[in-house]
Amino acid sequence: MNYVQFYYPEGFAHCYGCGRLNPEGHQFKTYWDPEKRESRTEFTPKPYHTAIPGFVYGGLLASLVDCHSTATGSAALKELESTPWDQGPYPRCVTASLEVQFLKPTPLGPTLVAVGRVLERSERKVVVGTEVYADGVLTVKGKAVVVRIPEGWGG
Amino acid sequence: MNYVQFYYPEGFAHCYGCGRLNPEGHQFKTYWDPEKRESRTEFTPKPYHTAIPGFVYGGLLASLVDCHSTATGSAALKELESTPWDQGPYPRCVTASLEVQFLKPTPLGPTLVAVGRVLERSERKVVVGTEVYADGVLTVKGKAVVVRIPEGWGG
Repeated sequence: MNYVQFYYPEGFAHCYGCGRLNPEGHQFKTYWDPEKRESRTEFTPKPYHTAIPGFVYGGLLASLVDCHSTATGSAALKELESTPWDQGPYPRCVTASLEVQFLKPTPLGPTLVAVGRVLERSERKVVVGTEVYADGVLTVKGKAVVVRIPEGWGG
Repeated sequence: MNYVQFYYPEGFAHCYGCGRLNPEGHQFKTYWDPEKRESRTEFTPKPYHTAIPGFVYGGLLASLVDCHSTATGSAALKELESTPWDQGPYPRCVTASLEVQFLKPTPLGPTLVAVGRVLERSERKVVVGTEVYADGVLTVKGKAVVVRIPEGWGG
């Protein structure tokens, strides 16, 4: 299964968080399950992505929630089109607002798994709820409002 | 004037966002004005810190708000101690929750200026409000709840 960011138009594929064409970035990859209507982004932080010793930096977790949410929004908007899911380009979203709750410290080492669900969707806007797990333990909850990039912004 | 992160205990100075001892990180530096009771973090994003072309990546802005808020909380808690402001160590905070509103796209290029104020403070918890400006234009608002790291967490 290809990932959502694979289908972003080339001009929108340079994001520091999830751009497949940004070699300096995190290159988050988000998979969308059209049956469960659930998204999934896995990422293994580097040793230097620390906050306090042994734990993952909150800004990285916020970044993960951010790109995971725009990708989830993208997949949710793609569903409204008549073209098949494996035919790009996908609509590209940007984040209007982001809320992150750090429920407990996230251990540095394990692969993190962000799981996202669509809470609301209109033609222009998607609200995405995300849970981030480390070793199967929920450590972070996120909520993001993402909006479709207006026509003519490039891409 | 030295910056807040200069006074973090060595064990807490490796944060990817603001650790003075993390060479891979952003090394955000936050200044606290004890008279205005206002904090200030300036940062110039790198060209690869992009989201969509020409604009700053939201996750980086969230990271800036995050570390800026923990530093502001640290300075606010330091005020409760009898030692002078230029004598470390400062209390170290972690983020419990983070809200970021992206009011408009933040242009990539100019130095960003985050300005923070203490909205609430107890012995253990500080609520910080942040505004981020690019070329003098407010583009991002943030609110973070930060809490004092419990004794014995290292540092």
